[in-house]
Amino acid sequence: MQLFHREEIEQVIRLDTDVIQVIEEAFSALITKKVHMPPIMRVDVPINNGEVDIKSAYIEGFDSFAVKLSSGFFNNPKLGLPSANGMMILLSAETGIPEAVLADNGLLTDIRTAAAGAVAARHCSREDSRVAGIIGTGAQARLQLQALTLVRPIEHVLVYGRRQEAAEKFKKDIKELLGLQVNVCGSPQQVVEKSDIVVTTTPAKEPIVQSEWLHAGLHITAMGSDAEHKQELECAVLDKADVFVCDVIQQSKRLGELRNCEAHISEKAIELGEITTGRKRGRESDNQVTVCDLSGTGVQDTAIARHVYSLLV
Amino acid sequence: MQLFHREEIEQVIRLDTDVIQVIEEAFSALITKKVHMPPIMRVDVPINNGEVDIKSAYIEGFDSFAVKLSSGFFNNPKLGLPSANGMMILLSAETGIPEAVLADNGLLTDIRTAAAGAVAARHCSREDSRVAGIIGTGAQARLQLQALTLVRPIEHVLVYGRRQEAAEKFKKDIKELLGLQVNVCGSPQQVVEKSDIVVTTTPAKEPIVQSEWLHAGLHITAMGSDAEHKQELECAVLDKADVFVCDVIQQSKRLGELRNCEAHISEKAIELGEITTGRKRGRESDNQVTVCDLSGTGVQDTAIARHVYSLLV
Repeated sequence: MQLFHREEIEQVIRLDTDVIQVIEEAFSALITKKVHMPPIMRVDVPINNGEVDIKSAYIEGFDSFAVKLSSGFFNNPKLGLPSANGMMILLSAETGIPEAVLADNGLLTDIRTAAAGAVAARHCSREDSRVAGIIGTGAQARLQLQALTLVRPIEHVLVYGRRQEAAEKFKKDIKELLGLQVNVCGSPQQVVEKSDIVVTTTPAKEPIVQSEWLHAGLHITAMGSDAEHKQELECAVLDKADVFVCDVIQQSKRLGELRNCEAHISEKAIELGEITTGRKRGRESDNQVTVCDLSGTGVQDTAIARHVYSLLV
Repeated sequence: MQLFHREEIEQVIRLDTDVIQVIEEAFSALITKKVHMPPIMRVDVPINNGEVDIKSAYIEGFDSFAVKLSSGFFNNPKLGLPSANGMMILLSAETGIPEAVLADNGLLTDIRTAAAGAVAARHCSREDSRVAGIIGTGAQARLQLQALTLVRPIEHVLVYGRRQEAAEKFKKDIKELLGLQVNVCGSPQQVVEKSDIVVTTTPAKEPIVQSEWLHAGLHITAMGSDAEHKQELECAVLDKADVFVCDVIQQSKRLGELRNCEAHISEKAIELGEITTGRKRGRESDNQVTVCDLSGTGVQDTAIARHVYSLLV
């Protein structure tokens, strides 16, 4: 078994169209192949405001699969450490023998999560989407925007963050990183009303996006909600959308945007893999409103762990 | 984060009274401390007759905890490989940061499982137990016997295995390893009737030990059953026992010997940690029959991972 540290992993992988393709195929596999994906396991460490989530998925026909540990210890910033951490273990699906430990500190999760946003945008947003609206200013906000630029001709960025300072830093970083014009907005409403694509990347516990702000041609991807206490979109947003997509409907009901919504909304939901495989249609016209809720799946982890391992060895 | 291979781990740890003490304290912690132990996560790989189980437990007050992957791929022997494999990851309970990967190939599980057998024998068997009966002839059968010799004055061993050849090999190995006299028996009944302590270490799907074979002063530890389809003891064995002990009652109901038994039997069950902490009594006289069902717990993994890491660094 080999151990790879983050520095080695960073040298072989970055967010690019190859990775987006790998993640798109993972969503397709969820529909076309038999996938064994147990529910997420969580170990709580309440005394330190921490938790470790463990995800895994075995996709039939693949010769290896990943087990991922990802932790959130929310007292860490006080110690000068990032809250999030993580690692993946790649196991042979033929023998169960561990092949590699990818001590990536969450890098691969960041990339596969952003890549999923690109897959959603590729299949649901208007092809001529030029204005990207980002709600949230963290690391994933930057990566989501970068992912969008790989699949849509983004020219202009609108950003909203609760802390003005963080939004200004985001503007500066994006200018340097992607050379894009960024405007800091005073409210999430301004972002939504003026954008072609909106990505929400917050840990919000109360809905941020309201249904009155929706407009023809808009696509929204909600990235943030991945636990029982989080929500970024009003249920009316999902209800009004012409197309509502999830990575995994069952998981969205448990941890994502569907959790608080009435049954008729989950009944209209379709899965992203149904679109990537051509079994269902995403956006059908430029005037539709499309919404996608991504809560993160083990098949993405297995797909990116296999991909990076093939690049490392 | 450091990676330790099996060869390094073998150099610092072996089955001894220190490890038995560490595991005894883990059982006590299950009773005296708040323990966060999610249900076992299982990833199935049916096409290769394989599965990976993931266990974890955080014990409040401890500064680290383990996540353990253990795999059983039952086509491996055809490939000349062992079925079982595994590794542990030790995480800081203060920051969630992974401290070490213990690539032990299941060594620590073998040791902590045998040590639990010694804890059960120490608290439940007669102090003058001299005849150990072992049903099963695999690696764990050898370790369980070795563990018994550390806590009881074992002089004589009776063994039964379905394959005579494997039982003869066991006899030869034990003679060399422990210098003990071993007799191979023709039936499990012979073993049980003539032993002071019996340990069952089989993957049996139908009960092996019958209640008519019980006799005054006997202690039985059932190690084998750790899944929904396994059972080593007739329910009447548990029913007739004067004292019936589990590592974790809820887990025994789900995966262990209690699974098929009537409710009144689980009502009389006590946990091993209740005995090790002195809150309940194990054996109270030389004439009692005591039975202990061990299905394996995450606290044992956390305890042994912490112990071995302290020896390695």
